[in-house]
Order: sequence, then structure tokens, then C-alpha cells
Amino acid sequence: MNFQTVLNDVYSEVLSMNLEGKVSNSIPELSKINPSKFGIHLVTLDGQNYGVGDSNERFSIQSVSKPLTLAMAFSKLGEKVWQRVDVEPSGDPFNSLVQLEYEKGIPRNPFINAGAIVIADMIVSLYKNPKDDFLSFLRTISGSDTINYNPKVAQSEKDTGFRNRALANFLKSFGNIENDVDEVLDFYFHQCSVELSCKELAQAFYFFANAGNTKEGTQILTESQTKRLNAIMQTCGFYDESGEFTYKVGLPGKSGIGGGIVALFPKKFTIATWNPRLNEKGNSELGMSALELFTTKTGMSIF
Amino acid sequence: MNFQTVLNDVYSEVLSMNLEGKVSNSIPELSKINPSKFGIHLVTLDGQNYGVGDSNERFSIQSVSKPLTLAMAFSKLGEKVWQRVDVEPSGDPFNSLVQLEYEKGIPRNPFINAGAIVIADMIVSLYKNPKDDFLSFLRTISGSDTINYNPKVAQSEKDTGFRNRALANFLKSFGNIENDVDEVLDFYFHQCSVELSCKELAQAFYFFANAGNTKEGTQILTESQTKRLNAIMQTCGFYDESGEFTYKVGLPGKSGIGGGIVALFPKKFTIATWNPRLNEKGNSELGMSALELFTTKTGMSIF
Amino acid sequence: MNFQTVLNDVYSEVLSMNLEGKVSNSIPELSKINPSKFGIHLVTLDGQNYGVGDSNERFSIQSVSKPLTLAMAFSKLGEKVWQRVDVEPSGDPFNSLVQLEYEKGIPRNPFINAGAIVIADMIVSLYKNPKDDFLSFLRTISGSDTINYNPKVAQSEKDTGFRNRALANFLKSFGNIENDVDEVLDFYFHQCSVELSCKELAQAFYFFANAGNTKEGTQILTESQTKRLNAIMQTCGFYDESGEFTYKVGLPGKSGIGGGIVALFPKKFTIATWNPRLNEKGNSELGMSALELFTTKTGMSIF
Amino acid sequence: MNFQTVLNDVYSEVLSMNLEGKVSNSIPELSKINPSKFGIHLVTLDGQNYGVGDSNERFSIQSVSKPLTLAMAFSKLGEKVWQRVDVEPSGDPFNSLVQLEYEKGIPRNPFINAGAIVIADMIVSLYKNPKDDFLSFLRTISGSDTINYNPKVAQSEKDTGFRNRALANFLKSFGNIENDVDEVLDFYFHQCSVELSCKELAQAFYFFANAGNTKEGTQILTESQTKRLNAIMQTCGFYDESGEFTYKVGLPGKSGIGGGIVALFPKKFTIATWNPRLNEKGNSELGMSALELFTTKTGMSIF
Repeated sequence: MNFQTVLNDVYSEVLSMNLEGKVSNSIPELSKINPSKFGIHLVTLDGQNYGVGDSNERFSIQSVSKPLTLAMAFSKLGEKVWQRVDVEPSGDPFNSLVQLEYEKGIPRNPFINAGAIVIADMIVSLYKNPKDDFLSFLRTISGSDTINYNPKVAQSEKDTGFRNRALANFLKSFGNIENDVDEVLDFYFHQCSVELSCKELAQAFYFFANAGNTKEGTQILTESQTKRLNAIMQTCGFYDESGEFTYKVGLPGKSGIGGGIVALFPKKFTIATWNPRLNEKGNSELGMSALELFTTKTGMSIF
Repeated sequence: MNFQTVLNDVYSEVLSMNLEGKVSNSIPELSKINPSKFGIHLVTLDGQNYGVGDSNERFSIQSVSKPLTLAMAFSKLGEKVWQRVDVEPSGDPFNSLVQLEYEKGIPRNPFINAGAIVIADMIVSLYKNPKDDFLSFLRTISGSDTINYNPKVAQSEKDTGFRNRALANFLKSFGNIENDVDEVLDFYFHQCSVELSCKELAQAFYFFANAGNTKEGTQILTESQTKRLNAIMQTCGFYDESGEFTYKVGLPGKSGIGGGIVALFPKKFTIATWNPRLNEKGNSELGMSALELFTTKTGMSIF
Repeated sequence: MNFQTVLNDVYSEVLSMNLEGKVSNSIPELSKINPSKFGIHLVTLDGQNYGVGDSNERFSIQSVSKPLTLAMAFSKLGEKVWQRVDVEPSGDPFNSLVQLEYEKGIPRNPFINAGAIVIADMIVSLYKNPKDDFLSFLRTISGSDTINYNPKVAQSEKDTGFRNRALANFLKSFGNIENDVDEVLDFYFHQCSVELSCKELAQAFYFFANAGNTKEGTQILTESQTKRLNAIMQTCGFYDESGEFTYKVGLPGKSGIGGGIVALFPKKFTIATWNPRLNEKGNSELGMSALELFTTKTGMSIF
Repeated sequence: MNFQTVLNDVYSEVLSMNLEGKVSNSIPELSKINPSKFGIHLVTLDGQNYGVGDSNERFSIQSVSKPLTLAMAFSKLGEKVWQRVDVEPSGDPFNSLVQLEYEKGIPRNPFINAGAIVIADMIVSLYKNPKDDFLSFLRTISGSDTINYNPKVAQSEKDTGFRNRALANFLKSFGNIENDVDEVLDFYFHQCSVELSCKELAQAFYFFANAGNTKEGTQILTESQTKRLNAIMQTCGFYDESGEFTYKVGLPGKSGIGGGIVALFPKKFTIATWNPRLNEKGNSELGMSALELFTTKTGMSIF
């Protein structure tokens, strides 16, 4: 199979679908993005790279950062992580407070905002210079030294992120935040503001497909730990549309409201897409369609 | 009927009930209160005062302040108040975020915390010096010039009130807070920290029983407005135990986690009780029992 | 005050309001009713009767029957009733199953459908010939020998009442129905199908305003029991619009989806209205407006 | 790898874990089962069979039947199935009515009871003799001619299945049941009552691992359809413990309250376990532990 030809075909077919969807306006700074940007990048475990469209342009990865901070916490705490956050899919939207109240401050999973804020709190407790350390980690796993935070986006979220501030204080009221709420949110808003291209994103997630090891051979997680995080991406990676994504695409993955999606086939490849227009569940419509087409054309689904 | 005898009887009967309940530990500063304090004070509209027990000792009125700030906002905004807060009883606890999410940021009523925070936001918008103006108002309606905030209690709530901070940020995320969250909470925590005795409390609520006019003749609300606020106290004054209180006592009223309760019979009397021990719904057990006994002995229920 | 003049004024003012609302189609047989029917009837405790409009035409009282079966059960079981049904207002619609699940099969109050079905189960257990006995009771309290069930309406509910059948089976799954589900529902559907005029309805509720005694002097409930049921009507009589009704009208009462409403002022009067058009909460819009106008014009609210 | 040795090791290790859990008493007839029964059976796609313990003894498969009726409906209706039932995991217990109310009668997925009842309704509409046709289907896919219903178990569920009756009527009230409720439930209770051994179960699910084709070559579903149903098993197969199962075992599967579990690795194998003791989520504890051990020992997880 010629992957470049498949990507090219997927790219043009998806563009011809006239999909709608809207750029997120929940973060003012993000709403300025050109909605027609569209890129796809594939990295195979035998070391090949295939790209199409705007696959080298950086964008705000937002929630796609969540499996990465989870990996950082999981590598240090192991199974203890699950004392403070569960691994079950959530039927509620990503920023809901309802389940959190019924379940006494234990977030459903690490990928809804409440769960990611708890993970951010762990990072703040575990690492000396959380923001620097996260950036180093990102640069290591992606092999890109220039990856950075976008301070305007972080500030924009700080100024308008009342829902996340509500979540963090709510978690704190249940005793599930150890550090100062503002410090935790500062890390969280920065974590979400990092900018990577599709190519860099696909490279950063390489270790999830490679039994926990980066391309260069650095071990981030054990093979068993890696499988477990992939499993969580499968069941919880797309908010209350995780079932739909699993049904249609059949790969573990993670989406963000910046319009990015990353997905992977263990031992075979990672793939990243980007288009800023989102469906009503907060996932990129073009990206989901591209991945569905890609797995259909290649027959590469884990199921 | 000799009201003093009735009060004395109620007082000793309730003490003999061996009621349990616990002093609230949600606000550290309040948890230090002597749990055996118990007072009752009755003010009749013909100007008589009857007290028993610790009825002249001041305590933190907490949520009993909510009908008073509501009256301040209602007197200026009239029916417009209900565009931002509803008048329906809530089946959820006083600090729940669940209903707020389902109902898109419109609190069920002005007496659950979310509703009271919205009212606090109105006060901050409507009055020049909100904290001073609320204090003046309190002194006017109670006839007590020395009523004041307890800054330690206010600070204690500020340091530990993560749930209220979550509520305020959640409301802000729905656009239902106009001012800065910290400024609104500062007023709210102060409002809750004022200290009155049972006697002062019964006097402060005199205008609710007197068609909107204080004892000295100052009109706070119109007769029609007064009826409406009494109606809300009837259906919503005791959180998710409002039905129980209405069933047993049959008077409009309001409770607070400082252990105070005030109730009133329109055109007849107001009555205040205080004991710091609370049942699991957050209401004073001795106070509720005292009021049930009082209405049974006197036959004075509005139903 | 000339009550007849007040009623006439209320009647014409309400008609000029051009209120909308729709006849319920939840029960096919009821959807055939002429939507312009409108009547009001007032009975004062000194024995006077005042009527206007279609106040002598019978209609399906539906949920207005609920306080009456509750009185039948309460008179036999007393406080034991509350072991199986609570007295708190419900924030959910009248036929919701949500709260019932969270609260393990104990309905919030006896006026939501789940609660009324539990009361119906009590009647089936307590009375030899439940349907005959309820009819006798109705005839006694209203002084009308010809009051009867409408078998077509009962059958119509039996054929289409899947939600009520769901509720009854759900209650049974929690062990809160003693008898056969079909037998209980047969009684419940019949109870709702009885037809009374506004005049008969106002007379039937006379004992709630008269300390538990009918006009002819038969004691149905004690004075204390009567107060308690009035209190429940105040907090729970209008489903999730009970707060609104209390706020605007300030009287205990009960509505039904046939378009009837009854309200009462303890020791003073009972009043019934009927118009089949309902607002989205399932309450008669003309009736609520008429009662609000009536209490405003007469100044007769309990608050 | 010698699978027989692995199974033997898993079997004895799990038995030594002293797991607790209780036999379900929700269906009286099932509560009589010997709680120490324990079997495992593995079928590989190259045609090998490996069994240990009570793997040839039949038991009530209960909810394990749900993917099979879903396959029957899906093979005829295709994507239309999803107009009446969603594919998202549910955070609520398998028999909850809460989500169903919020989501207007569309069950979250076909494996919670509400969803399976909708699928049962489809079967009743699509097949001439639903009970006979389901039995034929079962015999075809498992290669076992003697598989049958257990009429006592079906009757036991009919007599006590008030929650399922509530669900079915609730669905009907939303218009999401086409046929008579009793007829649908009769099929549903029978479907759940079929008895298979671990060996038969592993064989029956062979087509899910074999791209839609039975061992004998009969095509049940297309390859694409098969993947999609495997995906749903992955995200929804274990009620509100689906995330946990995916995390620990990493295979699509389905559990039942009879204590059976089936899981599969596409293109490689199917495996079935049985022990009647359930954890509080309603899943077999020994079975889950056995499968976790099996995938750990063999390294065979899809992630």
C-alpha cells in the first residue's frame, strides 16, 4: 500500500464533503484561526513520514496534551494515579460538573477537564518546574526543540476560563487538589496552549504506538503501562463521542478544541489531523472523517 | 395566651428531647461555637417582646441573611430579579452544582447558595458601598446600631469556601455574574458573617410580617412584594427540607448553618431561634422542634 | 367586598388576556375537550356560593383527585404514610423517573405521579372496594350524588399510559407497591377520570379549609392533619411550578391536566377554576391567572 | 506458546486469589447456582480448542446474548439500527432509567437493558418466529444443536422483572417500542435465559473474531460491520465498568449476570469464562481476573 497516495485521496475526498462545523469560540484567542486550514500526517513505526496539506503548520493542541501529562504522572505514580481519577467513559460533556458532584470529586477519567486538572495538580506536586519540565518532555518525545507555549492563548484561557476555575475549586472542595488552585490552573492553561504541527504531534505520540519507547529509544512508559493508556484513549478520548469515534475509526486517539486529533495503531503507526472546525461535541469533523476514511481504505482498525 | 409561658415551656421541652445533630464544620471559625447555646425570641406586631435562654447572645446568621439581601435587590429591581434567578424549590442540597448545569446557570431560587451569590452580584452592581450599605440596612431594620460583620468568620469562609468559589465561577461561565467573582464573593462571605442575637433577628424580620414596613414605619417593600418574598421563604427557606418544615411548622422562614432560624406569621409575629447543632440537611434541630412545638401549642400556623 | 362582582371582573379580565396554552394530548380522550370552556366557583365558609362561566359543567379532574386519595389514606394511616412517600417539592416534571431512581423508590411527594401511585396502592390495600369507596367519599364531601367515573377516559389512560405503567413497575422494583401493578393502575386511572364541576370541586375541598370537617359536619381529618395536607398542597401542588404558584397566588392548591385548579384559604374559602388549555408545565394558564387576579383584588393571600 | 498450559496456570492462580463477590439474586432462579463453578474455554482461529474447569457445563448467558441479537438486527437493518439506539458508553448502571429520560427514550447503547429491549423489539418486528429464529441462529453459530431456552429462568424473570418492565413501558412512552410491551419482554426474557457452556459460547462468538464468518463459513456480518460491533463491545460491554475492563484486559467482550464473560481478539481467538460470583457492578470477578491474567501472560491485547 502506498500511504502517500492514500493520504492524498483521503485529503481530497474529505474536502469535497462540504462538512460544516464551527471554530470554537470558547477561547477568544483561538477563534481567530483560519477555518480552512487542514493537514494530515502519518508516521509509521518503520520510520516513514507522510504528510498532506497544512501538516507542518503549528496549532494549539489543547486537550490533545492530556495523554501526555497523564503519561508524565503515570510514569512516576503508576497505579496510584487511579486513586484520584477513574478510567470510565463519561456520558457528560467534557466540562460537566454533574458527575463530579455525584461521584464526590473523583473525575470519571483523565481526559474530561476535571480529570485533566487533577493530573495537572499531580504534575505540579511531582515536578520541580512543571512548565519547563513539560516543555522538555514534549521536545524529547517529538524531537522538536522549538515547541513552545503560546502565552496569548494561555492568558486568553486564564481570562475567560470560568468553567475550568469552577471545576478546579469544586475539586478542591472535595479535597482532590493538593496545590493552590491558581497555580494548578496556570499549569493547565499553559499545557493546553502548546503548539505543534500534525507532524510533530504524530511524532510526539510515537511512544504510545511503540510500547512506551520514543523513536530514539528513550523509555517513557513500560509496555504494559502503554497499553493501559491506549485503552483509556480508546474509551475516553473523544468526550461523549468516544463511542462514535471507536465505532467509526476503531483506533485509540485524542481530540482537542483547537481542531487537532491524534490516533494510533499499536506497533504500526501514529497519525495526526488538524482542521479548526468542530462539531457540536467539540471534535474536528474533517479530522474524524479523514480518520474514518483512512482506516476504511487501509483496513487498519484494531477491531 | 401568655406567650412567655409558651416560650418557657417550649424551651424546656425541647431541651429534654435529647436531640443530637452536629455543629457545622464547613466553616472552621464556626466550629468553635459552644453547641449547647439555645435561645428563642418572639416579637409580636403589637410591639411585645418575649425571650428565653440565650436569646440576647449574638451568633453568625449565615444564610438567614439571604432574604435580607434579596429584599434589598427586590426593592430596587422588582420583578426583574427573576430574570436571573427562579422561585422554585430545589430538590438538591444548598450548594449543589447539578441543577445549575441542567438549567444553564439560572439558580432555582435565591436561597440556595448559587441564587444568593447572584443576588450578591446584584447588590454589588446596585449599591455604591455594598458592605456599608448592607450594614446600614441591617441596623435600620433591626434597630440595633452595633450589628457588625465578623471579619474572622468572613476570612475563614474566604480561605475554605471552594464550593462557593466553584459556584460563582460556574455562574460567571453562564454569564450570570456581572462583577468580578472575587468582589462578589467578598460581599457574600461578609453578608453571611454578620452577627445578630435572636432578639435582633426577630426585629430585623419584622417588616416581612408587617406588610413591608419596619416597626418605626420605614417602608422597605410594598405589601404585595412582601407577600411574594414570604411565599419564597415558605417554599424554599430550608433547602431540601423546605417541605418538611412547611409540613411541620407551617410558617415561612429561613435557616442558617450558624444554627439560627427565623420564622414569621404575616400580620402577627416574627420568631427567631438559635442552637448551633444541625441535622444532616444543615438545619438546626432544636430550632425546628421549638418552632413545631410553638405552632402546635398556639395553634398559629398559616395553613 | 362583593365576591360575585370580583369573580365577574376576574372572569372578563382573564378572557381579555389572550392567553395561549394547549389542551393536553397526553390522554387522547381529553384532547377532544372544547378549549374555550372557562368557569370559576367560590365557596365561602359562611356558606355562600359564587359562580361564573362554565362553573357547573363537569370535567375530568385528573390530578386534582390526588389530595383526596391522600386524605383517605392519611385518615387511616396517619404519619405512617410518610414512610413510603416524602413531603418535599420536586424540581422535576410530574412524571419523571429520575428522582425516583436516585432516591431508591421513595417518591418526593404524594402529588407527583409516582407518589400518587403509591397512595393508590395504599387505598387498594386499605379499602375493601377501592373504586366504590372512593366514589362514596367524593359524593360525601361534595354533597353531589351523581359524581362518577368516566370509563372512556379511564380506558384511554389504560391504553396509552405507558409512562405511568413504567412508574408503577419501577416502584414495584423498589418494593414500594404492595399490590398487583395492574390493579393499582386500574384504581389510579379511575381516580383520575372522575368528573366534577367547579362548584362540586370547591365543595369537595371544603373540609381542607374547614379544619377537616365537611359542610355537613362529617370529620374527615383532624385539624392538625388538615393543616399538614394544606402545607403539602402549598409546596407541591403545582409540580415544578409550585414555587411560581405560591409566589403569585399565595394559596395552597392543586392542579390537573384536565385544566382544573382548586385553591383554598384556611378558615375562609375554597375556589375552583377550569379551562382546558395548559402551559408547558401542565397547569391551566387561565386558572392560574384568574387566581392571581382574585387574590390581588381581594388581598386574600395567606402570606 | 502452549495455550493449554496458560489456561491451566490462569485457572489455578485465579482460584488462589480468594476473590469474593456474590451470586446475583435479582433473578430468583439464578440464585440457586453453585457459586464455585468455574470454567474457561479458548477457541483459536486456526481451529484449536482449549478448556479448563467447568468449561463444558451450561449456564444462563443472560446479557452475553445481547451482541448476538444485535448482530441479528444489524445484519438486516444496517446503520438504521442507530436511529433508535446510540453507541456511546453509559456511566449509569445497566438498568438505569435516568439517562433514558434525559435523552428522550434513545438508549445510550445496545448493551444496557434499555438498548437491548429496543433491539429485542426490532427482532420481534423483523423475524417471523423470533424465539425459534434466535434459537436457530444460536445453534448455527455455535455448532451446537441442543442449545435451548431455560423456561424456568425466563418465567422467573417475567415474575420479578419489574425494572425491565418499567424500562420497556418507559421506552414505549417515548415511542421507541413498536410492538406490544409484553411480547417484546417475552422475547427478551427468553433471549437472556438461553444456556451455553464456555465452549459453546466461545464458538458462538467465533464470527466476531473471524470478520463476520462462522467456522463453517456462513457469513453473518460483513467485515466492516463486524469491526463496528467489536468496537461497541469494547466501549460498552461491561456496563459502567467498561473502562476498567478495557484498561485491564484490553479486549472487546461482553458479560452477563449469570457470571459468563466472552472476549475476543480479532483474527486470533475467542475466549469464554464462567463463575457465578459477581462484583458490585454485576460482572464476574473471577472471569475478569482470569482474562486480565490471560492477556498479561500471553501479551495478547489489542492495545
